[in-house]
Amino acid sequence: MIKKQDMLIIDCLEYVNWDRKLFEHAKTSGLNIIHVTIAYWENTEETHNNFKKWNEHFKKHNDLIMPIHDYDDIHKAIELNKIGIIFGFQNCSPIEDDIEKIEVMHSLGAKIMQLSYNNQSLLATGCYEDRDSGITRFGKEAIKEMNRLGMIIDMSHSAEYSTLQAIELSSRPIAITHANPNSFHNALRNKSDTVLKNLSQSGGMLGVSLYPFHLADGSNCELSAFCQMIYDTAEMMGIDQLGIGSDLCLNWDYTILEWMRSGRWALKPDFGEGSSDNPSWPRQPNWFEDHGGFQNIIEGLDSIGFNKEEIEKIMGKNWLNFFKKSFQKLQ
Amino acid sequence: MIKKQDMLIIDCLEYVNWDRKLFEHAKTSGLNIIHVTIAYWENTEETHNNFKKWNEHFKKHNDLIMPIHDYDDIHKAIELNKIGIIFGFQNCSPIEDDIEKIEVMHSLGAKIMQLSYNNQSLLATGCYEDRDSGITRFGKEAIKEMNRLGMIIDMSHSAEYSTLQAIELSSRPIAITHANPNSFHNALRNKSDTVLKNLSQSGGMLGVSLYPFHLADGSNCELSAFCQMIYDTAEMMGIDQLGIGSDLCLNWDYTILEWMRSGRWALKPDFGEGSSDNPSWPRQPNWFEDHGGFQNIIEGLDSIGFNKEEIEKIMGKNWLNFFKKSFQKLQ
Repeated sequence: MIKKQDMLIIDCLEYVNWDRKLFEHAKTSGLNIIHVTIAYWENTEETHNNFKKWNEHFKKHNDLIMPIHDYDDIHKAIELNKIGIIFGFQNCSPIEDDIEKIEVMHSLGAKIMQLSYNNQSLLATGCYEDRDSGITRFGKEAIKEMNRLGMIIDMSHSAEYSTLQAIELSSRPIAITHANPNSFHNALRNKSDTVLKNLSQSGGMLGVSLYPFHLADGSNCELSAFCQMIYDTAEMMGIDQLGIGSDLCLNWDYTILEWMRSGRWALKPDFGEGSSDNPSWPRQPNWFEDHGGFQNIIEGLDSIGFNKEEIEKIMGKNWLNFFKKSFQKLQ
Repeated sequence: MIKKQDMLIIDCLEYVNWDRKLFEHAKTSGLNIIHVTIAYWENTEETHNNFKKWNEHFKKHNDLIMPIHDYDDIHKAIELNKIGIIFGFQNCSPIEDDIEKIEVMHSLGAKIMQLSYNNQSLLATGCYEDRDSGITRFGKEAIKEMNRLGMIIDMSHSAEYSTLQAIELSSRPIAITHANPNSFHNALRNKSDTVLKNLSQSGGMLGVSLYPFHLADGSNCELSAFCQMIYDTAEMMGIDQLGIGSDLCLNWDYTILEWMRSGRWALKPDFGEGSSDNPSWPRQPNWFEDHGGFQNIIEGLDSIGFNKEEIEKIMGKNWLNFFKKSFQKLQ
């Protein structure tokens, strides 16, 4: 059996209310690099405050974690046996209406930004809107600036046409850090074959998600079904364009889910992927309740018929290669 | 000949860098009520600063101007022989991403808000975008809130589908405070017959514009052609749905035009309705160079065949009636 100790593990999206115990568990579970969300609807000042909270984490838990500012830092983190933290935004709200704030946020450490969350943003349309205006005038400028700086464009929550246009307009491959194919489970947040094919043909990456609303059978999705989805997706996209973006959410109460769903834009709560009958956090599948689940995925991929080299690519090497190409600043 | 002294004059959009001389000239030119723009791309704090500047104006020029907070204030201004100032935003940037700021801005005195300027906003699509996603999820909530408060929805700079949808979704008639029909001069900023017919059928108002980029023959547009356009538009929309929204811009330098066009969203200047060859403010028609031009319009409307009652409606009474219906708060 293939062991987690043997391979690099990169999770390209988590939203966790971290404490020392959770960092320790991620480390003993073999996680090397984690892309952590630090903004949904947060504006510039609120995002600064979230960076400040992470500065505290880095001071307090210096033996366990370190920030990733460039590609070399990833190797440094592996060498030092620390979890490397990559900062990302699930919306463009941290830059507000100011293109020059992209460079500011990049300097502060943001390496990945979604052009929209579920709603229309100033840059692109979110997957929950009725119609899709595509990449806006501001969005076109933002893509050029993100390309120049080496900030990854993430379209996980964006609508179909906006996503296709971002793939086309971006001079660098883009990412969908956390979503699944619609052919596995049809949901507004999952992606069509057209999007996934265009993404892979342009050198982009898909991180498959373990958030129950993105899974066939939701919380009851079986490990074998999840790994079969990865197998089918690898056949469609190629084995080099796939990784994990677990969308693991841990240790948050319901008020945070309300913030994620409703931000400041609705006077009454919007239930997003949930409903008024079932508004709260969904239950994770029993084989992926926390960071310990990565070992189960490795085993599941082994059982479904991937070889060791392929599993290594899916669990981390593909993201590593993608980050190498993506993080370099263009002159 | 009909004299300006005989009638109420309301200009439903101006963007002027006001000083005492300009207030005095507006007053001697017979202006009673002016809707003044105090935000294009200004965020909450910048808009607060613009309210503060106006508080200074009201203190310094208390003998000439007063703020309009409700419908009764309009009659008070007329009685006191002062120009009544109605505040408006040409974009939703003052509320940022926060629906509760609509009520805050309304309390501060904002009575009219465009759901977008030329670009995609968080609420609706602007007329310069390639595609139009219509009223967004946030936009639908914002319309309900503006309807409740009695804040007028203005779609002057918005794209076609967004405008049609705003007319439909709003429980109160909306306004296009400053634009002309495309049939008069085809421009991204002017409006289709479909929009104008839906607007008038729903009880909404069009303010015809004197900004040269909205005029046939631009700066060389003749008074008779402008008045003929009003005549034709009155035939299409009805005589009760038309007023003036001159879009008169006075006493600003080029940097302000750059701000209006490019805000903070572009690293290089966007020339908007102008071009790199001709970037600056367009020359006004010689019959409408400043507030003195309103008397010329009255004469032009007389010459084109409108009777006194009709001219009174166009010059102010229609806006007055519209404000009466619009400003009342729904419980």
